Amino acid sequence: MAISFLSTFKPIAFFPTQKSSPTPPLSCCNLSLPTVTITEPEPVFTSVQTFAPATVANLGPGFDFLGCAVDGLGDHVSVTVDPSVHPGEISITEIYGTHASSKLSKNPIWNCAGIAAIAAMKMLNIRSVGLSLSLEKGLPLGSGLGSSAASAAAAAVAVNELFGGKLDSRELVLAGLESEAKVSGYHADNIAPAIMGGFVLIRSYDPLELMRLEFPADKELLFVLVSPEFEAPTKKMRAALPLEIAMPHHVWNCSQAGALVASILGGDLAGLGKALSSDKIVEPKRAPLIPGMEAVKKAALEAGAFGCTISGAGPTAVAVVEGEERGEEVGRRMVEAFRREGNLESVAMVKRLDRIGARLVSSVAR
Amino acid sequence: MAISFLSTFKPIAFFPTQKSSPTPPLSCCNLSLPTVTITEPEPVFTSVQTFAPATVANLGPGFDFLGCAVDGLGDHVSVTVDPSVHPGEISITEIYGTHASSKLSKNPIWNCAGIAAIAAMKMLNIRSVGLSLSLEKGLPLGSGLGSSAASAAAAAVAVNELFGGKLDSRELVLAGLESEAKVSGYHADNIAPAIMGGFVLIRSYDPLELMRLEFPADKELLFVLVSPEFEAPTKKMRAALPLEIAMPHHVWNCSQAGALVASILGGDLAGLGKALSSDKIVEPKRAPLIPGMEAVKKAALEAGAFGCTISGAGPTAVAVVEGEERGEEVGRRMVEAFRREGNLESVAMVKRLDRIGARLVSSVAR
Repeated sequence: MAISFLSTFKPIAFFPTQKSSPTPPLSCCNLSLPTVTITEPEPVFTSVQTFAPATVANLGPGFDFLGCAVDGLGDHVSVTVDPSVHPGEISITEIYGTHASSKLSKNPIWNCAGIAAIAAMKMLNIRSVGLSLSLEKGLPLGSGLGSSAASAAAAAVAVNELFGGKLDSRELVLAGLESEAKVSGYHADNIAPAIMGGFVLIRSYDPLELMRLEFPADKELLFVLVSPEFEAPTKKMRAALPLEIAMPHHVWNCSQAGALVASILGGDLAGLGKALSSDKIVEPKRAPLIPGMEAVKKAALEAGAFGCTISGAGPTAVAVVEGEERGEEVGRRMVEAFRREGNLESVAMVKRLDRIGARLVSSVAR
Repeated sequence: MAISFLSTFKPIAFFPTQKSSPTPPLSCCNLSLPTVTITEPEPVFTSVQTFAPATVANLGPGFDFLGCAVDGLGDHVSVTVDPSVHPGEISITEIYGTHASSKLSKNPIWNCAGIAAIAAMKMLNIRSVGLSLSLEKGLPLGSGLGSSAASAAAAAVAVNELFGGKLDSRELVLAGLESEAKVSGYHADNIAPAIMGGFVLIRSYDPLELMRLEFPADKELLFVLVSPEFEAPTKKMRAALPLEIAMPHHVWNCSQAGALVASILGGDLAGLGKALSSDKIVEPKRAPLIPGMEAVKKAALEAGAFGCTISGAGPTAVAVVEGEERGEEVGRRMVEAFRREGNLESVAMVKRLDRIGARLVSSVAR
């Protein structure tokens, strides 16, 4: 079942500040959790399970302000009303799944799902009910596929659904941003599409303004995601970025960002891929830090991908293609290139654009 | 009559390189006039008159890659088959109109209309017919409204129409660029919308790739253009630009450029205006060089404009509004602000988006 507020999206949905949401400063940045001034809601379910998809941030010239969600890959979160937990608090009981890791703390204030769940509970003003949370990690950490954002999105949406879905998508993104701020900086280009689905442009942070860019419903968009066995820590990849950009490169990337947005809205796969491949500022600095990445991009384009770049901060490479078969072939060539040029083993997946975002999967009535 | 090729535009028209057009380097830049390999065409008219509209380049975060055309303001060019002119050459017989100026040379190789006409004749391979050209300047020089581009666009289209319209819009833009390169540098953000109409995104120069961004036909877009009695030479305004841009400002302007494109395609006036006003890189450097500009922008927004910035390199200020009456009021307030804060007299006009571009106005059959 899709979360109801998602059904209200227009081709370009614009989420401006809500005047009713005062924004006292946070320590991490000059931003805030809105104080949602509602009386404490009752839980409408005893338990809910949610899913939040993987996301591809940056998309070449969309660096730090554009991301999209990919279907069939992500994290699950279950949240249950738990009388054994102190009212107003949440306890993480279990972290399991393909990509469960000892790096993931069960202390809610140090866990992405926990932080986002606590933020959602604060916004909903939950004081009388204690919750327990279990997290199924379907996404690897540090892969460049928005692993932390998927956990945070699934958790925030789970808490919201448990209490009747009083928070809107923008508020849920703000809850998720509490978590992202601790993990990788105050960036919404993963958490916003993880919650809203599709392509989301982050227009501003103070106030948070989001634009959902609707890829035409009658067109198919396929991503080839190739993740090598290599750790590319977000902080190291950020440190590789230039502090200053020459005007010609700025103008170039800006024009490609505009072309990328136009291609998304127009459903122009070739134009989208071309823009994806066009970044002259970030990719040239980061690609050399991922063994074989330049060769992988070359291989993807030679195999018929419309475009290819680094997903998020890497190391996953993302290509845009038309058709499953072409996607499989492009994936094979990219895996070969990682092995040949980077001496890295990698896994290829062909995934569709996720147009829904974080969603309720199942619920147990009270 | 609208020029026929314009009728073929799609919501987002993409003009890629034509493989059939080899591109030998020019001295001015690493670009070229395509050699249109056709047999020399016969003139289909004895004489034609064309009109090309004023254009607003930059549009805030669209600096150097985005521009649009405004209706009811521009230059007229007449081109006539003239046996007294040496075959394959063109002679400028007359420059007249409201904004005729002694600064405008009658030597075709030093005149915007002349340079573009010669470029179009070369591309059409005209060797057997001599032409005379007269130019009616409806646009002031150095106003930031694409005065040179309007002359060049009208001339290139006049020559093309006289010989049966063999050149497509991209080729006509390349002809016009020959002129722009001599006057203000190799920038297509005025000449492309002057020829194609509407909003045009310059995706690349080598090869020249243009995207026409279609503002919804069922929506009205009004510009308030306020031109003060002040000279802001393009070269001086270019010299004010920063050579390097800090990453946060780059990311901000890129995201606003994306939002601007999405707002244009979605017909979102408020979003378009907001993006127009959002430039943190160019406008802050140039506005202080135009007396009163900051106050003019403030006045426009206070009077209900959706957004306001500098048109091209200035000194004209451009605001976006809804409704004629609001436009008149915004214009009055902007004129007051130029007088009060900049001690400058100025003229305000309210104009619609031009969706057609350079066009044939009249023709004399052979």
